[in-house]
Amino acid sequence: MGSVSIEQALALIKRGAEEIIQEDILKEKLERGVPLRIKAGFDPTAPDLHLGHTVLINKLRQFQELGHQVIFLIGDFTGMIGDPSGKSATRPPLTREDVERNAETYKQQVFKILDPERTEVRFNSEWMDKLHAADMIRLAGQYTVARMLERDDFQKRYSNEQSISIHEFLYPLVQGYDSVALKADVELGGTDQKFNLLMGRMLQKNENQEPQVIITLPILEGLDGVQKMSKSLGNYIGVNDLPGEMFSKVLSIPDQLIGRYFELLSFRSMEEIASLMDEIAAGANPQEVKRLLAEELVERFHGKEAALSAHKSAGNVTKLGDIPENVPEVTIDPEGSEELPISAVLRLSGLVKNGAAAKDVLGRGAVYVDGQKVAPGFKLAKGDTRVIQAGKKKIARVTIK
Amino acid sequence: MGSVSIEQALALIKRGAEEIIQEDILKEKLERGVPLRIKAGFDPTAPDLHLGHTVLINKLRQFQELGHQVIFLIGDFTGMIGDPSGKSATRPPLTREDVERNAETYKQQVFKILDPERTEVRFNSEWMDKLHAADMIRLAGQYTVARMLERDDFQKRYSNEQSISIHEFLYPLVQGYDSVALKADVELGGTDQKFNLLMGRMLQKNENQEPQVIITLPILEGLDGVQKMSKSLGNYIGVNDLPGEMFSKVLSIPDQLIGRYFELLSFRSMEEIASLMDEIAAGANPQEVKRLLAEELVERFHGKEAALSAHKSAGNVTKLGDIPENVPEVTIDPEGSEELPISAVLRLSGLVKNGAAAKDVLGRGAVYVDGQKVAPGFKLAKGDTRVIQAGKKKIARVTIK
Repeated sequence: MGSVSIEQALALIKRGAEEIIQEDILKEKLERGVPLRIKAGFDPTAPDLHLGHTVLINKLRQFQELGHQVIFLIGDFTGMIGDPSGKSATRPPLTREDVERNAETYKQQVFKILDPERTEVRFNSEWMDKLHAADMIRLAGQYTVARMLERDDFQKRYSNEQSISIHEFLYPLVQGYDSVALKADVELGGTDQKFNLLMGRMLQKNENQEPQVIITLPILEGLDGVQKMSKSLGNYIGVNDLPGEMFSKVLSIPDQLIGRYFELLSFRSMEEIASLMDEIAAGANPQEVKRLLAEELVERFHGKEAALSAHKSAGNVTKLGDIPENVPEVTIDPEGSEELPISAVLRLSGLVKNGAAAKDVLGRGAVYVDGQKVAPGFKLAKGDTRVIQAGKKKIARVTIK
Repeated sequence: MGSVSIEQALALIKRGAEEIIQEDILKEKLERGVPLRIKAGFDPTAPDLHLGHTVLINKLRQFQELGHQVIFLIGDFTGMIGDPSGKSATRPPLTREDVERNAETYKQQVFKILDPERTEVRFNSEWMDKLHAADMIRLAGQYTVARMLERDDFQKRYSNEQSISIHEFLYPLVQGYDSVALKADVELGGTDQKFNLLMGRMLQKNENQEPQVIITLPILEGLDGVQKMSKSLGNYIGVNDLPGEMFSKVLSIPDQLIGRYFELLSFRSMEEIASLMDEIAAGANPQEVKRLLAEELVERFHGKEAALSAHKSAGNVTKLGDIPENVPEVTIDPEGSEELPISAVLRLSGLVKNGAAAKDVLGRGAVYVDGQKVAPGFKLAKGDTRVIQAGKKKIARVTIK
């Protein structure tokens, strides 16, 4: 603060933002010259971030650069309830340990973007666990059924006769109450969160707090250039993708997305980006411009050295059994017996997602340890450090503690 | 139990009942030969009962006669929340003191019908105050928005675009949870309560309890013979109406309601009632039959002596200033100064409803103390015992402690 004018600060905040409610109030808040409390909520069940999530995290970082305090809020209260309607067997309640483990995973990822000094990691269970049933009822009295049913997804489900459990009407109120508890000045969220963000404003007003300014951010398109980036659609670039994988994925985005990816994901100034776009318009090779973004992103998540050599390991590890440069290091610390089957090592080291994927890749004969193909029954011992490949795209130097 | 057969017990329970869900299960429960837990919920804000309310209380009494345990449940938890949406300025939250005072008022009335030995007076705050917000959310997860909107009154309000606050969706769940907490075997309610009674069955099932049997009772018509008996419609007979007033009101019911009033309000057997109806059909004066009911009811609420002489004071106190027999005794215990204005005495003794009514009756010159008309400025002293008349229908011997 102080080093940039209010106008410069506003311009930075507005970069890439979809909507600000209300901009004039935001300006007033910025003019006070005291650090604002910038809230953003995260799902405690899915701590694996992709670049789509970082659009919002980058905006948090910009607020930090302007001297403000970020509150990285993990919505563990509802996560620990799970699905009380019992409809989704796949959504068991999180335990306290799950929450803490997931929080660590978040931190490991977001502190590659955010300044830990200006970030409070908070859990909404801190205040929600203290609320009584009567408080929940009072909260529910602040809003009407008809207005809740106006929320896009509820409206669709209601008119399609898909069931909505009553507790789902309480969750937006909980999210809004989080803003009250945190005395948030600003809340960020995706455009799909606008309804819930507004809930915070409403509840803050009812509590005689100054209502938060809400800023919505666009949903980033995935590698296909059409659908939103998402794990389940497979069109994502994961924050934890290996350098080569990340590099080649960035190079694969459709040319028409280059400007948007730069605006939302790069830390370069808008002026620099404009001049890069001008170069493309003047005939420069778009791949060269994407390469700049790819290097910036690999550096952000894997460090400078990885960025310099990522192009070498871009895409596949060219041949199974060949060990490339810059193999990422992974240490696993399994409990129990001295020997570990290769399938468990693959899983624990994150080289495969789950036991089924381990079985699959082993079955295909596509697992190599120190350059040698291994059979499904292969075991490793505690204390070993081995370079393990699982298919052409996954490799790591795994140490078993 | 034991002295009557299951069939006789069932016949008594079915007398006047609108619906039993499910009768075969009720039979099974009765056959076990252990006292059942019979729940009925009451509004903590309105402890003044009229005969319409006693339809249900009479049914509770019948269960007691069959050896079962009645749970007179006062819904104080929601009463102490008030209206969190702030829409009804007229519904302030009850205090703990209000709840206790109202409970005493209930007891004073219902124990004229119920056996205190077989009645538990309970408050749902006992368990609801212990529930956390997370428990409330889990409860809300047991039911869907669409099914809740099927409730008659919600459906009407929703389609008329009258607002429904979300907390109103939680109250039926609270009522249902009360059955879980009380492990109710049977719950009684008016026909308008059917939806809420079923909620108890659903939640008990989800908690692996045997679902309660629900019994709905008809809504009693008021003195006009058409609309339901209600204070606000003025067509009611209050449990606390003076003997003469009660007597004359019963005599004023339309002839076609005689059978129904007997079935729902009298403790005579259905055989006796049938033979009374036969007498009317054969030409007996219906007023004589109503008189039997009037005497039974006056005796229930005011004692045998009052019943014998109620006809003398029936209707009006014939002339203001004349002091009739059987003046009811009231003792009031005001705080503060030694002298009390007549308007306060009228209010505190229940001779008028509120300050405005006191002003009105005083303004009309219709207030007599010991047979002498008094002016609005008249005062009484602590220690006085005076017969006070407020208009032609209200009289009491008031002692000021």
